[in-house]
Order: sequence, then structure tokens, then C-alpha cells
Amino acid sequence: MIPVAIMGGSGYTGVELMRLIAGHPGLELSAVSSARFKDQAVDTVFGALEGMGDLSFVDHDPAALADGAELVFLAVPHKAAMAAAPGLLEAGAKVVDLSADFRLRDQAVYEQWYAPHTAPQLLSEAVYGLPEFYRDLIPPARLVANPGCYVTSVLVALAPLLRAGLVEPEGLIADSASGVSGAGRSAKLNLIHGEVHENFKAYAVDGHRHTPEMEQELSVAAGQEVRLTFTPHLLPMDRGILSTIYAKPAGGADADAVRECWRQAYDGEPFIRPLPPGRLPACKEVRGTNRVQLGVAVDPRSGLIKLFSALDNLTKGASGQAMQNANLMLGLAETAGLTELALTP
Amino acid sequence: MIPVAIMGGSGYTGVELMRLIAGHPGLELSAVSSARFKDQAVDTVFGALEGMGDLSFVDHDPAALADGAELVFLAVPHKAAMAAAPGLLEAGAKVVDLSADFRLRDQAVYEQWYAPHTAPQLLSEAVYGLPEFYRDLIPPARLVANPGCYVTSVLVALAPLLRAGLVEPEGLIADSASGVSGAGRSAKLNLIHGEVHENFKAYAVDGHRHTPEMEQELSVAAGQEVRLTFTPHLLPMDRGILSTIYAKPAGGADADAVRECWRQAYDGEPFIRPLPPGRLPACKEVRGTNRVQLGVAVDPRSGLIKLFSALDNLTKGASGQAMQNANLMLGLAETAGLTELALTP
Amino acid sequence: MIPVAIMGGSGYTGVELMRLIAGHPGLELSAVSSARFKDQAVDTVFGALEGMGDLSFVDHDPAALADGAELVFLAVPHKAAMAAAPGLLEAGAKVVDLSADFRLRDQAVYEQWYAPHTAPQLLSEAVYGLPEFYRDLIPPARLVANPGCYVTSVLVALAPLLRAGLVEPEGLIADSASGVSGAGRSAKLNLIHGEVHENFKAYAVDGHRHTPEMEQELSVAAGQEVRLTFTPHLLPMDRGILSTIYAKPAGGADADAVRECWRQAYDGEPFIRPLPPGRLPACKEVRGTNRVQLGVAVDPRSGLIKLFSALDNLTKGASGQAMQNANLMLGLAETAGLTELALTP
Amino acid sequence: MIPVAIMGGSGYTGVELMRLIAGHPGLELSAVSSARFKDQAVDTVFGALEGMGDLSFVDHDPAALADGAELVFLAVPHKAAMAAAPGLLEAGAKVVDLSADFRLRDQAVYEQWYAPHTAPQLLSEAVYGLPEFYRDLIPPARLVANPGCYVTSVLVALAPLLRAGLVEPEGLIADSASGVSGAGRSAKLNLIHGEVHENFKAYAVDGHRHTPEMEQELSVAAGQEVRLTFTPHLLPMDRGILSTIYAKPAGGADADAVRECWRQAYDGEPFIRPLPPGRLPACKEVRGTNRVQLGVAVDPRSGLIKLFSALDNLTKGASGQAMQNANLMLGLAETAGLTELALTP
Repeated sequence: MIPVAIMGGSGYTGVELMRLIAGHPGLELSAVSSARFKDQAVDTVFGALEGMGDLSFVDHDPAALADGAELVFLAVPHKAAMAAAPGLLEAGAKVVDLSADFRLRDQAVYEQWYAPHTAPQLLSEAVYGLPEFYRDLIPPARLVANPGCYVTSVLVALAPLLRAGLVEPEGLIADSASGVSGAGRSAKLNLIHGEVHENFKAYAVDGHRHTPEMEQELSVAAGQEVRLTFTPHLLPMDRGILSTIYAKPAGGADADAVRECWRQAYDGEPFIRPLPPGRLPACKEVRGTNRVQLGVAVDPRSGLIKLFSALDNLTKGASGQAMQNANLMLGLAETAGLTELALTP
Repeated sequence: MIPVAIMGGSGYTGVELMRLIAGHPGLELSAVSSARFKDQAVDTVFGALEGMGDLSFVDHDPAALADGAELVFLAVPHKAAMAAAPGLLEAGAKVVDLSADFRLRDQAVYEQWYAPHTAPQLLSEAVYGLPEFYRDLIPPARLVANPGCYVTSVLVALAPLLRAGLVEPEGLIADSASGVSGAGRSAKLNLIHGEVHENFKAYAVDGHRHTPEMEQELSVAAGQEVRLTFTPHLLPMDRGILSTIYAKPAGGADADAVRECWRQAYDGEPFIRPLPPGRLPACKEVRGTNRVQLGVAVDPRSGLIKLFSALDNLTKGASGQAMQNANLMLGLAETAGLTELALTP
Repeated sequence: MIPVAIMGGSGYTGVELMRLIAGHPGLELSAVSSARFKDQAVDTVFGALEGMGDLSFVDHDPAALADGAELVFLAVPHKAAMAAAPGLLEAGAKVVDLSADFRLRDQAVYEQWYAPHTAPQLLSEAVYGLPEFYRDLIPPARLVANPGCYVTSVLVALAPLLRAGLVEPEGLIADSASGVSGAGRSAKLNLIHGEVHENFKAYAVDGHRHTPEMEQELSVAAGQEVRLTFTPHLLPMDRGILSTIYAKPAGGADADAVRECWRQAYDGEPFIRPLPPGRLPACKEVRGTNRVQLGVAVDPRSGLIKLFSALDNLTKGASGQAMQNANLMLGLAETAGLTELALTP
Repeated sequence: MIPVAIMGGSGYTGVELMRLIAGHPGLELSAVSSARFKDQAVDTVFGALEGMGDLSFVDHDPAALADGAELVFLAVPHKAAMAAAPGLLEAGAKVVDLSADFRLRDQAVYEQWYAPHTAPQLLSEAVYGLPEFYRDLIPPARLVANPGCYVTSVLVALAPLLRAGLVEPEGLIADSASGVSGAGRSAKLNLIHGEVHENFKAYAVDGHRHTPEMEQELSVAAGQEVRLTFTPHLLPMDRGILSTIYAKPAGGADADAVRECWRQAYDGEPFIRPLPPGRLPACKEVRGTNRVQLGVAVDPRSGLIKLFSALDNLTKGASGQAMQNANLMLGLAETAGLTELALTP
């Protein structure tokens, strides 16, 4: 069993990492840190983690975390992640960072959307951790930047089509909705049940931080700079993202061409599932899994291509994908610990 | 008190009509029909209607319903509505039809999307019941076709902008999501809690019947034929529609111009509320009301205008708007019975 | 229109009071205070209150609030209520206090469960505001203590039976469950959607503060000291309380006898509805209303009587009952502003 | 890999069995039957089962199902189960029956609550499949009757205390609430989202079929006939049961004595978790797992003992426990395929 550690275990992505590690055949959790819950037993703080054995939260000490682990998951907020990453790497640990700190290759873009970068020397080394796109780069990497949740849902659907020239790179729109766990586990008024339940609304409509990340990777796929209109919405549910993407067909592409493109791009991929005609992605069908469902329709009136992409924001959108990256970095089977089916209903 | 009747009281729109009539200062319910619940007391079938007095469901007999009422609400499915409407009118009742049967002015379009029309002689007489657009035509009308729920949410946001030339009539996209009551009150597997809860997905992606209705009215507003890409989604909640609409600005229009256009279009309108900058529509803020909230943003990267429109699919999207039409047809205050605030949380 | 004010308008009971006042035919809101939202427009803070007119939150100044109002609703937490009440009364306003500060007649009991009482001189004057039990005392009262939400649900079902000697005063158990709005509108981790949704659990199992209040009134009804076992639970929903009560029949009482006792006790009562055999109370059927549904069954094996009582914790459980009290205190019809039917679905 | 089959794969317990088998290290699914979905691919009917490989539903043919499997799970309704069981056993398969058909040892009691028994010759052979109570009897059994969901939640909490004489066998009350998946996956009006969501109510208050099953096993534990008052409620959520049980202490038992009794009864048990003082069971903390959480409090006023028991009705309440039984019958580790942690949030 390979020891791994988690820095930041009190949020939903940290808890999801612990759930996945507990069910993993080749990993064991050496330590998990939390400022808020330091010295408290993990399964007392989170009753849902009952059964993962004796373990208490420790300090956010990079050296100590790296000491007993081959790989450390960074599940702390951005800024805290780039503060910790250099120390972890120096201490010899591999790092999968679930924050945004190493996702954007261009420091200026990062600083425009987030904050001054305090570890820019690592930007060129960090590998963008979408295994379906960068599988070869991940095993040798020391530092993997785990993609954003919305970003993954959009890229998996759209990038192969741009690469194949089946959709125009102009006029792309991604209209996405996420369960509320995407906003984290914190005591904020806008997250309480009375505000979220029986509600639905858009947010961050003037520009969400996942936009430049989507554009970075879509531009790679298109071979030219791509601009995207992105609108996130908040769903009255815990888990799940559905992205509905509008694109202009190029070269007469139709739904069959899209499905064939996906089939070629994802043939043999364990986690990406283009659905057959007549079926559409549904958040509940991928809940708790590392899977993405893809669907397509062509609007009979406008001719626009509509893409649909469903994933679980905490699994393939965060901790599941982080585990997939860790598996690759540690020489394990890519699907290890990620094979369970969706919990339904 | 003016007597009104309901044909079709066993669905959610029928129940909502009863709720609204019970709180109306100038209307009383003379009769309500239901094949399924004939002869059963209304407040036994629907405990939520406790307090509306003694009333049992009667047969679907147009003559009898029209006999004791000045106006009859048709809350039966399409086809049943056009079968009943001629008899109701002949018997001297005014009619507000909540089905789709008289919404489309072009019989051929109706028949393409629905079924052969059995009362085409009434199509030219029927008035499209969106009071904010056709207020002058409604008071003298005998037959008002109450607009579709998605349609209302899209038209209220978009039509004034087309009329004013602030957005291009090409490339319009409406991405909408509705609470599950929009699918009616029937025992279908896809509507049970275990399938809807914690789920989100698109449906009818190849063409929803509300599309031609939107296009009909948007074309009137634009003064030219308009095509729209429309995608409905199913929300894990009971009530509420949010439409997110994408449009290309025309003539340099920005968010302020949109708000100013709405302000002029809806000045004095009791039910339409363009929100100030910084606020976005939220389904929960209009729940149970006849109100529409409107919001706007301009995407800083693509320049696309994003419109947001929230309403309650059972109130302004169906029975509340029907009541607004009935008020106008019966010479009552347009807001009578429709002033209550949103139930929150 | 009689002017009334609200001290404490930023919680769910305050918002519910504003909703009810907005729909009230005889009241107008003169002022509403909030420390948190001072000087902000009410309908900007709460979009759901759109339509209630121009009004901004003011300071918690009892004299100013009392100045322009005949009656002030205290919707602040306990302790704050008893700090404000004397000043409000002195300034000439009538007071309905939604907190617990004047519910317990025995100061020692209050201090055992809550805190040192700072206005004990008002305890004997305060009237317990359950109109179905104390209707005659409320109109002349200056200060009415509005009952607790759980308490109302239990008393309405159980007290008449104790009064009539149909159940034994020993061994009573009330097992209740409440929607999460009962815990207030505050940014607490245990109230966020991710913790409440798809969850159900008991809390305060060693003694909830509503227990002595139930016992006080049940003892009055029984004519002897009554002890009750009470267990509250938290439901994954916004509104609603259901209490399931277990009692030993006395004198051979059966379900018919219970229904007959309720019929006599509540004949003519507008808000209390004993259901006929075959129907059981359901939270959704009273949502947003001031109604209580009552049901009964006799366990065929143990002979225990089971009582069921459903209400909306924010309406009959708090602000609706406060309005009912205010109507009585101001000489208005008791049902004024409280006649709307349940919002369903 | 040992082949097992499922008769009845179109309900929620069947789907849950497939999910668990897919994650099981020692079992493979040889066949699954469904009348409704015959010849359709399993992962087309249930998108959530994507990833379980190629498999289509087959006929309900006991001989064929038994032919390729060492053990068959009966996930059909009662009556259908007892019709199929003899043929399955004759064909050499072991059987775990998730229905009620073989749970009650007394044929007369079965027939009073259910229907005439068509395989009474198997009643004495069938083993009641609560491994924590009957572990020794299960490995050699050919036919195991899997306990009811409510029943398991009550027995695990209460039986050890009766066995140890810590609570009186008279006056026991179990007040339970279940998520709606307990009502099955069928198109019934009372199960649709609009009826369940934001609702809470009791049902089957005059006698639920799980009552005699609880009494049978509680009587075994107490060594005398036990009668129980049981009240089930329907929760607005998918999964989870919480039982709140009221019992009179015997011999001065207190909360510590209860916890110590549970500790002794369940020492080493992998799935039963008595919580330490200060914690209470929560449905969400056991969701998707085979675990039971237990809690206890003594009411300071009445002295009654309150027990709290949480489980997932589809896992430990049905398919998880069936898997636990199958593991024992097939000589596998009892926890095989049942170790995953709760999915949260």
C-alpha cells in the first residue's frame, strides 16, 4: 500500500478524497491536515467517514505531510496551495493540486483572475491533469494541476470537436449548472438550505474564473485562440454538473459526426461515455462516480449543435480526477479505486 | 362576486386556479370538473385546498359549466380544450384556455407540432393572452389563449429588445430549466421522487412544442421571421422556471440599454420587475406569485448579451396569468387576487 | 389601515410577518428594524418581498418603532425581546412577542431553561397567545407571548383530550419533526444544504426548551402536573412540523371519541381541522397557511392512541399565529390576512 | 468469481444489488431478470449502472436463473418470491429472498398480514437473515429470509437490551421515518416529486406489515411475547431510515448501561456502530453503506430511554444485508463488497 496524504481535509473535496482512498486497493492515507479540526478524530468530525480507521487531523505542515507520503493531495483553497506546493516538492513528495493555482500556464492570466502568483517557477513544470488529454505527461510529473469542475465538463465534450474541426471556434457558449457542494463546505448564508432549496439562479455572470481555464485548453485543441461565453448556475442539489454547450457546426457536421468523433477520441477511455442516440446525460446517473456522460443534438431550426455533458463535481470534477492523476503518477492502474457505480436513487 | 368555473381541476394548474380563486376578492368558483375525481369533495382530494368551502368535482359538461359561470378556465390537456371551447362559447361563457390549442395563429404550424385542429374557426378570434403585450385586445375577447410557461419567461425578457432593435434577431438561444410541476400531476415513472431528486438533465432537445410559440411572438416583435434555439431542462424542484437567453447586441447595446428598454416597456407593469445592476433573478423569489424577475449581463469576452428571466411556472407561467387575463375580460382590476408575495423560504 | 411595526426583520419569522402584513386588508407596516441590514431597502435584501413597497430597515429603537405603530411584533431572539418589551409598552404600543421570553409563567422555570429574566414584572401580565385556548384574554392584553412552533402542534392535538379526560396524563410522548427554517436564517455549518439535504436526525434529545412550555399548558388542561417526553428531529425541507403523539386512552376512549372531542373543542375554529377517518395530516397541505391538521389512530396491538398534528412552523407555528393574536388585539377579524390556501405543490 | 443471479432487477433493491455486485471482489452477475425490461440492456435501462458490462434483462425463469448461478437473490414482490423459491432450490441454487415471504415463522401470522402461503414447507427451513443475531445459522442455509428495512433498524437497537433485561418488554414504541425509495420504483401518484417533496406525514398507522416481524424477533430476544407500537413516516428524501424508539428502563438502566450492552453485543461487528455520548445517528452518514448507527439518551423528565437507529433502507435495510448474507452462505468474507464509505454530501 502506497502512503498518500491530504493537505486540507475539512472541505467536501477533502472528504471525497478520504472516501476514495478508503476504497482504493493500493493506497493508504498517512495523514490529513485541517486547521479547524486539528487533533480531532476524522470519523468524529465526519460521521460519514466511519470505517476508515483511526486517524486524527494534523497541522498544515508540508514537511511533515510529505515525510510519510509519496504523494500529497492539495485540497486547500487557491493561494494556500501555491504556498505549500514548493515545500512539498522539495521534501520529495509528488503533488496533485486541486486548487486553481497551477492550472493556468500564463502567469499574467492567473494574476488577472486570482492573485499575485507566489510560486511562478513551478508554472511551466505543472502538468494540466486531464488524463484523457495529457495522459503521457502525467506519470513523470511531480506536480499536477487538477482541472476545475465546470472546466472538465466542458472540455471533455468540446475539445475533441474543435480538434477535429467539427465545430466553429467562434461563438461557443457553455451554459452550466452545478450542485451546491461545488461552493464548498462553509457557513455562508447563501448556502443554507432555506436559500438553496426550491431555488435556481445564475451567478458570476460577468465572468467566472473557470472561463480562462476553459479557453486555455480549448485554444490548444483548436490550434487558435478561442473565446467562450460561460454562464454558471446553482442547482438545488448536492452533487452534479450538467453543461449544455452551443456550437456552430463546421463542414456540415451533424450529430452522428459528433458521436463518431467522440468514439474515436474516447475509445477505450474508462470514464468517458458518449451516449447512443435517444439518450441524454443525467447528473444522477454519474453521482459518486468518475464518469462523464456525453450527449448531442442538432437543433432542427437553427442548425446549432447542442452538446450535453454530465459529471459529479466532487468526483470527476475534483477528487475522483485527482485520484485518477495520482494513479498515473504512482504507476497504478488508472481506474484503481474509481470503479464503483453511481449510487441511485 | 362573479362566478367562474374550471374544466379540469385535477392537475396542478387546476389546483393553482382554485387556490387563486379562493383568495380573489371578486370571483367565486361555481363549479370545477374532473373525470377522475367526479363527485368527490375537492378538499378531500386536495387537502391543500382545505378552506375553500364545500365543493365537489362534477362532470366535464361544457354546457353545465358555462351555465353557472361568466368565464370558464380550460385546464384540460390540448385536444380536450379545443373540443370543449366551442360549446362553452356558444353557451355564453368567456373562455381562458390554458392549453396550447389556440396559441398558434397558423393552423398548419399547430398541426405540425400537435394534432389536427378541430376548431380552426376560432383561431383567428382567439387572443394571445400575454397582457403585457396584448392588453387592449383581451377585455373584449371571448376566447383567450393563455401562453406557455417557458414561452412567457422568454418573451417577457426578449420581445421588447427585438422591438427596440437592441439585439439581433439571428442566433437567439434560450436555455431554460423548469421545476417538475411543469410536467403535470400524473403517475409517470420519470416524475417519481427517486428519479427527479438530485438529478438535472435536458429533454426534448430536438424540438419542444413551445418553440414555435416563442417564434411566433418574437417574429411579431422583431417585424421579421425569427428562429430560436430552445433547450428545456428538468430541475429537482416543484415550481419555477429560469430562462437564460443569449443574444447578439445590435447597435452597440449594453446592459444599461437593455435595462432602460425594459424600464420603458414595463413602466407601471405590476408583475414585471427588471432588477437593478448587481441582482439576478431567482426562482424562489417569485414562487407562488405572478411576477417575473429580469436580469441582464454582457459577457465581457464575447460581447454576447445574457438575459435572465425567472417566474413560477404554475402562476405567471399558467394559472396566475390566466387569472390576470380573466380579470381583464371581466372588467376587474388586473392585479385582483394576484398581489400576494412570494412564499419564502 | 392600522400601522404595525416589526423589531427584527432579518430572520425567517420577520420575513414571514412582512409577507402576511403585505397581504393583510387592515394593516400596514410602519417600520421594520434590523441591525444587520440597517438602511438597506427591504426588497433588495429579500427579493421575495418585492411588491411590498418602499421600505428600508431601521435601527432597533423601541421608542421609534412604537411611535408610529399601534402594535409591534418582536421577532428578535429571546433576551433581546425582554430587553425591548418594557420600552415598547411604555411608549404605548401593544406587543406580540414571538420569542420565548414571556411564555413561561414561572420565572424560575424560564431561568432554568433560558437565562436570567430581565423583565419579570411583565410575566404575570403577559397572555399566552394560543387563541384557541385563551381567546378572551387576548383582546385586552398589552403583551402577548406567541407560543413555540412545536408547542402549538402538540397542544392543539393533546390539550382538549386531557381536558376531557380521554387520555392519561402520564406517559405522554411527543415525537416531532421540523423543517429547517425552524432553526432560523443564519450562517451555520449545520444548516447548509450539503448537511441538511437527504438527511434526517434527532437533536436536543436530552431536553429541548419547548418541553417546559408544553408541560405548562398541558398541566393547565389536565388540572394536574403533566410531564412529557419530547423528541425533536430535523427534516430535509424548509417548512413544516409534524408531531406524532403517543398517549394512553382513559375511560375506554377510541379514535371516534378523540374526533368527537376535537369536534366539540374546535367547532367553528377557522384554523383547526380534525381530519375525517382515513386521512392523515401532511405538512405540505398546510404550507404557508395558519391551519393545523389533526389525525388520530388507535394502535390495534398496544391500544395506544396516536395523534398526528401538522402545521407550518413559520405560519401557525410563529408569524401566522402572531398575526392571529394581533388581529384580536386590534379588534380586527381574527382571520384577517390569514385566509390564503396552501401553496401546492 | 462466484456467479450469482437476481430475479427482479427493475426495482430499487434490484438495482442496488447490481451496484453492490459490480463492486464485489468475489462475485459476478450471471443473469438478472425483469418482465418489464426483458431483452433490454441493463445499462440502457439504468444509466447509473453504466460500467457493469454487457448484460441484458432475461425472463423470470427460475430454472434458467438457477442454472448458471450458485445463489439467486429474489428481489421480486412477496407472493412472486414464494412462487419462485422452491424451483430455485430444487435446481440447486441457494436463495436470499428480499421479500417478506419467509420472514415470519408462523404461517398463520404471515397469512393474516399478507396472503395465503404457497410454500409453507419451506418456512421452518428458512433462516432469518440478520447476521448479527443468527450468524451461525446462515452459512449452512439454503434459504435466507432477508429482514425488512424498518425491522432491521429497530431490532439492532432494541433486541440486545431486551436480551440483557435493560428495558421493559412492555410499552415499547418505534417511531420511524423512511426515504421514499422504500416504497419502490413504480409509477404511483403518491410517489411523484410534487407530492413527496417538502412533505412529511405518517402512513399505515393502523398497522404496518413490519410490525409482526419486529415482534417475532423482539419476543425471541425478550424470552416472552413482546408487543410493539410502530408508526412509519415518509421522508422527502431518497434513502435512509431513522427509528426513534421509546422504552422503559429496567433495573435502573441508564444511557451508559445501554452503550455498554451494545458494546458487548456488537464488539467486532463490522457494520454496527454505537456512537459515543454526544453524537446522534444521522441518515446521511450511512447513505449507501451497510452500516447502522446507534445512539441513546435518557429523557431527564420521564426517565424513558430513547434509542436512535439510522441505516440506509436500500443497503443494510435490503440489498446490502442480502449481500452480507450471501457472503456468509458462499464462504466469503462477510464484509466483501460492503466496505465503501458513505457518499457525502
